[in-house]
Amino acid sequence: MSKPPSSRAYVPFVSVENMMALIHHFGIEQVLTLLADEIEADFWRWELFDKTPRVASHSSVGVIELMPTSDGETYGFKYVNGHPKNTREGLQTVTAFGVLADVDSGYPILLSEMTLLTALRTAAASAMAARHLAPKGARSMAMIGNGAQSEFQCLAFKAICGIDTVRLFDIDPEATARCARNLAGRGLEVVQCRSGQEAVEGAEIITTCTADKQYATILTDNMVGSGVHINAIGGDCPGKTELHRDILLRSSIFVEYPPQTRIEGEIQQLEPDHPVTELWQVITGQVAGRTSERQITLFDSVGFAIEDFSALRLVLRLIEGTEFYTELDMIADPDDPRDLFGMLERAKR
Amino acid sequence: MSKPPSSRAYVPFVSVENMMALIHHFGIEQVLTLLADEIEADFWRWELFDKTPRVASHSSVGVIELMPTSDGETYGFKYVNGHPKNTREGLQTVTAFGVLADVDSGYPILLSEMTLLTALRTAAASAMAARHLAPKGARSMAMIGNGAQSEFQCLAFKAICGIDTVRLFDIDPEATARCARNLAGRGLEVVQCRSGQEAVEGAEIITTCTADKQYATILTDNMVGSGVHINAIGGDCPGKTELHRDILLRSSIFVEYPPQTRIEGEIQQLEPDHPVTELWQVITGQVAGRTSERQITLFDSVGFAIEDFSALRLVLRLIEGTEFYTELDMIADPDDPRDLFGMLERAKR
Repeated sequence: MSKPPSSRAYVPFVSVENMMALIHHFGIEQVLTLLADEIEADFWRWELFDKTPRVASHSSVGVIELMPTSDGETYGFKYVNGHPKNTREGLQTVTAFGVLADVDSGYPILLSEMTLLTALRTAAASAMAARHLAPKGARSMAMIGNGAQSEFQCLAFKAICGIDTVRLFDIDPEATARCARNLAGRGLEVVQCRSGQEAVEGAEIITTCTADKQYATILTDNMVGSGVHINAIGGDCPGKTELHRDILLRSSIFVEYPPQTRIEGEIQQLEPDHPVTELWQVITGQVAGRTSERQITLFDSVGFAIEDFSALRLVLRLIEGTEFYTELDMIADPDDPRDLFGMLERAKR
Repeated sequence: MSKPPSSRAYVPFVSVENMMALIHHFGIEQVLTLLADEIEADFWRWELFDKTPRVASHSSVGVIELMPTSDGETYGFKYVNGHPKNTREGLQTVTAFGVLADVDSGYPILLSEMTLLTALRTAAASAMAARHLAPKGARSMAMIGNGAQSEFQCLAFKAICGIDTVRLFDIDPEATARCARNLAGRGLEVVQCRSGQEAVEGAEIITTCTADKQYATILTDNMVGSGVHINAIGGDCPGKTELHRDILLRSSIFVEYPPQTRIEGEIQQLEPDHPVTELWQVITGQVAGRTSERQITLFDSVGFAIEDFSALRLVLRLIEGTEFYTELDMIADPDDPRDLFGMLERAKR
């Protein structure tokens, strides 16, 4: 038998089961709040990140993407797929896992499920953006699209922005009923609505999160009153948008990373030079966010690698000293690094 | 407690320990031979692969790369680092792991260590290329650079090309002695040489595999006689080459993928339009490989994503029905795919 490998050879692994246990241990609203703070802190140091475009492999039924980034000390990437037809086969539309590595040695330091974590980080990033853009004192949010992401969005806006009412609408009333059931007893007033129009009534924040891969119009121009903040989550790949173009023309538009959002976001409907503001510049105070009560602010969110990086770093910190991970023997670690073959041979005995 | 996830939620994982057990179970020469055949079969269908360039994140001390590819049915990627200074710290210069996924659903189907597997696939690809390019009846190989990759190269050329003698040289005599010890009793005549010049004497094949990240000249022009096949492994990133330029000018050069090799390979020393032949075209018979006894053939190998894909697919086949893997709970799999939150909640009970 070979000598056991050094600690560097083991990579902490957070399984789905352990991710769920971790979330329950800290509490979902607390995890969302920590995530929002972690993402905000990384947006403060936006400029030092390596902003490689995501690497997509498209097929006729979906896409598989790798989303890498680095802050110079830690490297991270997420594997994520998008297969809208999966739902019909009882599978997730989106599954994901992620890795962190030490830039200095190149050794991986974390492997984690990211299907749940992506839902959490997306909701946390939305609420973090709204903290800077939504009208002061906003209490009511319309949640249009009541699929897998919806409860996370509602709880993030409650925990991070102080929302106390959510107005749900989905073209599938069962989705709305399920979302309402899942949110019951969590301190939110939940209103089930029969139309998008009804859902936006009195809401200071409108979140759209629908899943079809096609140009859709979830919100029409007449539904959006002055002064609201729109959190547009569902338009996140070429050909997939949710808002009528006229809404975009009336809005101040905030984005994560313009080169990516112009291809994937709602603004793919606009001219390539249509003015947008980068969210990190609002957070650092370089550019104003909301400047008037009547202004419509729009966060055209597509999800960016840095948000996954922030989420993985938080997970790495939270699991320290806990039992919410196992160690994977993933890295070959010979006693003598030049003697990989010798390690293999000694394993035979 | 939640309902256990479906089989789709589990991803087979081959640890370093299990990879070593797998290699010993089948025998290293048999695994090398199977790998060479698998890689050759994928070179036959070269044109249908998605040939995305590798995505590199550079730092002052090394590089972390993602190497994705797809054949339209299966997607694969490798994470690999390159940190030459790691050896001094007792760490591997190169560590790697890889993933296969189902293109139709986007779900991962394999996670495997690839530090050992990369050493095996590199050696298998070298020997597979030599099967098409080396002089007929070659028996003796010079192995210059006796580091972590050297034993794998020697055994691959024995198993796949019928080499019976290896002539070892390294600037570090201890590396040569270790390589010789590791190869003892495996049916190879092993000659320890005191110079590169001595190593190449009478050798029909010359393999160079040294590790420094700088322009080096492991082989000078006068060392290379007519008719030999050169298997150049070590020149594999910008600024890292092993052969004197004059050797390249006398050789017929064969490469994996020209856009990558012109940046990373020995041919970075030549004009960007210097003629090279793609190995897959030799394998499919579209272009001649070796055409005369006096011709110098050079395989300027940098490693390509398709070779990793072939290796991962072979591993996935070999582990079937064995105990050489464990199952990782890596993919969230709610009973109702639209109800990720419900899955999380049910886990609480």
